[in-house]
Amino acid sequence: MIDFSDIQAAAARLRGKAHVTPIQTCAHIDELTGARVFFKCENLQRVGAFKFRGATNAIASLSDAEAERGVATQSSGNHGQAVALAAKLRAIPAYVVMPNNVPAIKRAAVAGYGAEIIECEPTAAARDRTLDRVASETGAYVVHPYNDWRVMAGQGTAALELCEAVPDLDLVLTPVSGGGLLAGTATSVKHLVPTAQVIGAEPAGADDAWRSFRAGRRITDIKPDTIADGLRAIIGEKPFSVIRARVDDIVRVDDAATIRAMRLVWERMKLVIEPSAAVPVAALLERTIETEGRRIGVILSGGNVDLDRLPWQN
Amino acid sequence: MIDFSDIQAAAARLRGKAHVTPIQTCAHIDELTGARVFFKCENLQRVGAFKFRGATNAIASLSDAEAERGVATQSSGNHGQAVALAAKLRAIPAYVVMPNNVPAIKRAAVAGYGAEIIECEPTAAARDRTLDRVASETGAYVVHPYNDWRVMAGQGTAALELCEAVPDLDLVLTPVSGGGLLAGTATSVKHLVPTAQVIGAEPAGADDAWRSFRAGRRITDIKPDTIADGLRAIIGEKPFSVIRARVDDIVRVDDAATIRAMRLVWERMKLVIEPSAAVPVAALLERTIETEGRRIGVILSGGNVDLDRLPWQN
Repeated sequence: MIDFSDIQAAAARLRGKAHVTPIQTCAHIDELTGARVFFKCENLQRVGAFKFRGATNAIASLSDAEAERGVATQSSGNHGQAVALAAKLRAIPAYVVMPNNVPAIKRAAVAGYGAEIIECEPTAAARDRTLDRVASETGAYVVHPYNDWRVMAGQGTAALELCEAVPDLDLVLTPVSGGGLLAGTATSVKHLVPTAQVIGAEPAGADDAWRSFRAGRRITDIKPDTIADGLRAIIGEKPFSVIRARVDDIVRVDDAATIRAMRLVWERMKLVIEPSAAVPVAALLERTIETEGRRIGVILSGGNVDLDRLPWQN
Repeated sequence: MIDFSDIQAAAARLRGKAHVTPIQTCAHIDELTGARVFFKCENLQRVGAFKFRGATNAIASLSDAEAERGVATQSSGNHGQAVALAAKLRAIPAYVVMPNNVPAIKRAAVAGYGAEIIECEPTAAARDRTLDRVASETGAYVVHPYNDWRVMAGQGTAALELCEAVPDLDLVLTPVSGGGLLAGTATSVKHLVPTAQVIGAEPAGADDAWRSFRAGRRITDIKPDTIADGLRAIIGEKPFSVIRARVDDIVRVDDAATIRAMRLVWERMKLVIEPSAAVPVAALLERTIETEGRRIGVILSGGNVDLDRLPWQN
């Protein structure tokens, strides 16, 4: 388990490393929802996603002896970049396992932060096997993208900053995938604003967290099918234990609504967000969640998209 | 002429109406330029552009007797939206003259703020004639987009906020078109940081300000040809008088460099900016301006773009 003191400790470790991201509002979205919505812009975080917080906290928590052997992870997305940059800042090696069919731009992003990329076949089994091998060969510490208390505590620092800057929120929303962001957020919010609700928003095509939350146990036999490429992971055991205890609800959003919400944020807020970040915004715009008259915080989780292939274009 | 006290007065009028926009940095751009660059995000300003500052200052400056007859302007772009919203906030009528071939989305944006749109033929003469007629029929105060001291003073408030938040800048850069933003910026910067340079960046295909600056007199016989649709106006007489006195240089940037810079800002900074806003960024990236070791402020002027027609796509 984590508690609020872990998040405070993470915030101290992140100082001077992670950005304190701005909080934006949008009169048009307030009008559409009848709410006052505060967007915590983690798309403007380093590496373009909140993931940098968790990776940095985990890596900054290592002893010097642990750290000198480096860190390893498997990810072709934001978490891989986050680990690569956090390791660079601590001046230790990073090993990132990636499937060999990953687009060149994603490899380049990770390599650009100085990490060593280890290719594997594009299957879950090959990724796990390769990561195990790399870890045992190098002695590197494996930084899991969400099933890790220190990662979760790091992710919770975004909501900590949000609650400190914006008093009296009635509700805080995040996307949910592996569950690290939602678990960390709930831990911060329930401590700082006990009366506020915390809700996770999930693509209908990858609704393992929604199902698990309702069943009261992890349901993992889901084949994710969603445009939100950051939300295809299955809910992790550790985050799920936090989510069961501290989160009020999980809601589902279909991809068409997510694309509309994403475009609206680009057009009206002038912020590049990725589809994953648009999922909670869609939940508000679709009124999947009661919005009228409420003060609502939304974590805009990231902004890493392929500008040549936008979801509203063919 | 305007001086710094006009900008301070404008800042007081804007309080609670305009956003104090965030200032962002980007490690990648710092690396590419060898500088430390501070981006003042006027794309996150209301209506998506700095233009809201000037329009709001002009309209807030009117006496009640002047104001009650409303305000008028001609613009199919950011200034039209800015006047419409500023008038709405003062609860007075706004009349916006637009050519009849303007895309529906631009009409909708202005109409969405409650302004009355008056159509005219798509020629400069028809626009002027129509605006004159509207003004004389309604008695509305005409808010010129740049050739107006109050508008210029409003535009200067962005640089005021920038210089107050970021000490010891060596250089501040803005795009230049009609000249209001550059003139207001120079007035703020030269007062607050007398040692700092102020430079305007202009598309090579619309280089009337560059030519005028070198000639020491306004050169207006230019046919603008640039992707930067916000920078096709000809330098105004009043802003030019300020620019001659207070600006250090004007540089030119070609459209290809502007498009590369725009894409880089979207990709790395996760900010939607329009081509006009990318022009000063391009001047830095191309090293048209000395950057090494300097602390540089850049006004990202706006973020209004057609998301269906991005300049790096066909």
